[in-house]
Amino acid sequence: MAAGKRVSQMRTIIVGAVAGGMSAATRLRRLDPTADIVVFERGNHVSYANCGLPYHVGGVITDREALLLQTPASLRARFDLDVRVRTEVVAIDRARQVVRVREVDGGREHEEGYDRLVLSPGAAPIVPDLPGIERAFTLRTVTDADRLTTVLADRQPRTAVVVGGGFIGLESAENLRRRGLAVSLVELDTQVLAPLDPEMVSPVHAELRRHGVALHLGAALTKVLPDAVELAGGQILSADLVLLAIGVRPETTLALAAGLTIGPRGGITVDASMRTNDPHIYAIGDAVEKTDRIGAEPALIPLANTANRQGRLAADAITGKTVTLSRRLGTAIVQIFDLTVAVTGWNEKRLRAAGRTYQAIHTHPASHAGYYPGAQPMSLKLLFDPHDRRILGAQAVGGEGVDKRIDVLATAIHAGLTADELADLELAYAPAFGSAKDPINMLGYIADNLLTDGQRTLQWHELSGALAAGAALVDVRTPAEHAAGHIPGSINLPLDDLRHRLDELPTGDLIVYCQVGQRGHTATALLTGLNRRATNLDGGYRTWHAGQGSDDSAAL
Amino acid sequence: MAAGKRVSQMRTIIVGAVAGGMSAATRLRRLDPTADIVVFERGNHVSYANCGLPYHVGGVITDREALLLQTPASLRARFDLDVRVRTEVVAIDRARQVVRVREVDGGREHEEGYDRLVLSPGAAPIVPDLPGIERAFTLRTVTDADRLTTVLADRQPRTAVVVGGGFIGLESAENLRRRGLAVSLVELDTQVLAPLDPEMVSPVHAELRRHGVALHLGAALTKVLPDAVELAGGQILSADLVLLAIGVRPETTLALAAGLTIGPRGGITVDASMRTNDPHIYAIGDAVEKTDRIGAEPALIPLANTANRQGRLAADAITGKTVTLSRRLGTAIVQIFDLTVAVTGWNEKRLRAAGRTYQAIHTHPASHAGYYPGAQPMSLKLLFDPHDRRILGAQAVGGEGVDKRIDVLATAIHAGLTADELADLELAYAPAFGSAKDPINMLGYIADNLLTDGQRTLQWHELSGALAAGAALVDVRTPAEHAAGHIPGSINLPLDDLRHRLDELPTGDLIVYCQVGQRGHTATALLTGLNRRATNLDGGYRTWHAGQGSDDSAAL
Repeated sequence: MAAGKRVSQMRTIIVGAVAGGMSAATRLRRLDPTADIVVFERGNHVSYANCGLPYHVGGVITDREALLLQTPASLRARFDLDVRVRTEVVAIDRARQVVRVREVDGGREHEEGYDRLVLSPGAAPIVPDLPGIERAFTLRTVTDADRLTTVLADRQPRTAVVVGGGFIGLESAENLRRRGLAVSLVELDTQVLAPLDPEMVSPVHAELRRHGVALHLGAALTKVLPDAVELAGGQILSADLVLLAIGVRPETTLALAAGLTIGPRGGITVDASMRTNDPHIYAIGDAVEKTDRIGAEPALIPLANTANRQGRLAADAITGKTVTLSRRLGTAIVQIFDLTVAVTGWNEKRLRAAGRTYQAIHTHPASHAGYYPGAQPMSLKLLFDPHDRRILGAQAVGGEGVDKRIDVLATAIHAGLTADELADLELAYAPAFGSAKDPINMLGYIADNLLTDGQRTLQWHELSGALAAGAALVDVRTPAEHAAGHIPGSINLPLDDLRHRLDELPTGDLIVYCQVGQRGHTATALLTGLNRRATNLDGGYRTWHAGQGSDDSAAL
Repeated sequence: MAAGKRVSQMRTIIVGAVAGGMSAATRLRRLDPTADIVVFERGNHVSYANCGLPYHVGGVITDREALLLQTPASLRARFDLDVRVRTEVVAIDRARQVVRVREVDGGREHEEGYDRLVLSPGAAPIVPDLPGIERAFTLRTVTDADRLTTVLADRQPRTAVVVGGGFIGLESAENLRRRGLAVSLVELDTQVLAPLDPEMVSPVHAELRRHGVALHLGAALTKVLPDAVELAGGQILSADLVLLAIGVRPETTLALAAGLTIGPRGGITVDASMRTNDPHIYAIGDAVEKTDRIGAEPALIPLANTANRQGRLAADAITGKTVTLSRRLGTAIVQIFDLTVAVTGWNEKRLRAAGRTYQAIHTHPASHAGYYPGAQPMSLKLLFDPHDRRILGAQAVGGEGVDKRIDVLATAIHAGLTADELADLELAYAPAFGSAKDPINMLGYIADNLLTDGQRTLQWHELSGALAAGAALVDVRTPAEHAAGHIPGSINLPLDDLRHRLDELPTGDLIVYCQVGQRGHTATALLTGLNRRATNLDGGYRTWHAGQGSDDSAAL
């Protein structure tokens, strides 16, 4: 930046008028009321509610206008922004600090000079090169949603195939079910929702099936036919409508052509100030690589909150404010019919693949005090580093209160709290909202048991190995619970009888389990206190059972 | 502790078998399977759900047994605990390490020796010495609840007066309304819920009145009559039933008589290990003084989660584990009909009284994205130190999502996050759960505006002073909003017109306001950027209006 140059003489061009681009533009205006700010958007709409699109398709959000948060006119009036839609930036001349701009209608081109350029082009749905793929819809823009609602109204499709079991795929499947279509979901992986570990995803699969979504896991789409799709192996699924949701890739065409650095994950490389390798060009949002908070490595996190955050940081940097690196966790949440799934940080698959040392904890708490009506079951998984005790990630599946627990854990990770410190958090307790020992506190207590008491737990996927090595398996639940379903090969010795029936226990190593892990913990404490080698099965029967239900327990 | 003494030879006596006492006993057992643990409880019940009692009285929790989480028999079976109910410890002989125990039935006394003594006697309802007070009920124990449900069933009272507008008082008022009684609430202070600042409590007063609770604020009970109560000034309120809920005081009779140190707030003094001034005696729960997290001073925080936490810490300390001080925030939550109120840390009244420097922020966000159905309004208040930027406290009033936001803020305070760092938190976002800029992020952005942009805001209670000093007041909302209600003396100049109508503004200092503070922020940024001295009214018209509605705006 030329020394002494007045901020307000600066001209900033922003490419892309959704989320990040708009956050940058409005922040820039608030910081500098007279700056020259021009925003180019090649699509028809600005600043729309991308995350609401599946729900508009499903009829939950009935008013299409509600999704259009701003218009060029409203942005002109309020923020004095020059926003031009259907106008594409097609080239950057870095040496001359000029962009070439093409009007989508008519194709006329001209040049615009900039002092600072902010790239916020977003990401585009990945469309594989398969026969018939041009018949598949995607759902990324308001225009996409309009196409879908038109086809739903005009052609009255009865069957749909959704390809891809990520967030958008699941939201789309639910909303197409809501519109009455018979929906099949095709996913290449052996599970939906890759951020979940296999034992955590079981209830999601069950919920989808319970609501009539036909799951095709480990299935590859090979062809889109006029009224069906074909999978590898030849299976044909009826599909009046095909929706493709296998992910997005950063829009880097413009950046690449301009010689900007692209990172290992395929996004534009930026520094803490969101600056690319060209000091006059910034980039933000889905198009750029973020710095991971757990591993410090480059990561693609195509989420609206991250894009908004980066837009503000870019504006701050452009106006000379000090900006510190925002490392990202990728906290995310999705509603799947009556189930809520939320995640933050790394999962066990990723920790294992990276060779990180970690400890997992599974619990199955109630959303609030069990004696108060309406408590809903939840499954929680916490991952932490047993050496420095830092929390590495968390997953939650349930109903009420799932969002709250993941938000608290995301905050704890951000702040660098240790897993055992969760025991000390003071969370708002009344019986309608939590428990006197909140599920978050319980995670902390369990971490403390492991870290300072020397208690040992066994993970669900380690059980078969331990049994093969000669350990005996003891179910400390009641006979009725045992009869209703138990792990093969376990003997039943209820916790409340254990103290008086110690002589009935097999000699050698013991693995103890109950329904969710709590009675197992008490039993293990008793047995180890009496000098027996005992290990508690983490998460109890419920986690073990969910792991068996997983389509790929070998993943861990 | 005698060096080399084996933990398992130790005898621990615990006084009090609810919350803290039971947490200590069960933790002690898990840490030491052969220790001798005796628990004395003078009441009839152990380990019951105190916080559920108002809802049992109201018929929300229909099953009384659901409140009784444990019995002496179940505790014997599972934890090998010797729990004796209706057995009161009446004296401690510290020199001999012996307690004198009296059976409530029959009055027989004997002595029991201890190696370690844990006092968990709780707190008792405060009962003022007023004529007729013996007719008033309290609601602290299962026995209290039984008395109330009996009287409700047998005598069919039609009118009730609840004395005290704290958590228990409000929960009781709601539940008596639920039972169909005409309820009056008498509160000595000019507002209910002392943890809320006056402008935050207005919606609570409105909600109580909307549900037919007659509020008598600033009113002192002087007399309980056979079918009514009398207030100072002579007003008579019909009262077939009188419920006293003006607070609790620590049960320190036993500790005082034994010469244990009592702190300035009237609770037993303990160190980080929950140890009293007698190295063999520990004390926990409502009876003891905690160390405040914001101010480091002694505080009484009679909450179940704190009692449970301290029970575990005492057991840890007794068995020789390292215990670090648990400083407490007093996070709390209460449901008041359709409203949820939650708080953490200090409020503005307390900060001001303590002479602390602080900055307040008020916002009125939606619980989730406005374009997704069902979003509920919320009022949030954040207090932070403008020098070290640390968060000092927060208050939230609304519906859905109030508990989540306060839990995140309580976690942030615990971890020492700064107010502006809230902008960087990654909270789970999907339109049904939050916004791409969550209300928590928005608090962080506003803090950043104040801390690093030099934006200035004016608080609702500072407005009259600023106007008297000659500032002009500008309403930047739409004419329709202005017409629907505005601050007297304000001129209306909508934000979207502001840029082109600058010449219509009065000269001199400007105070700008909108509905909730957001447009006011944009207007202030524009005006200050154009070298006008402008200040935004924090929280906008809504906070100002709530402050006017408060019964004591002079409190701040």
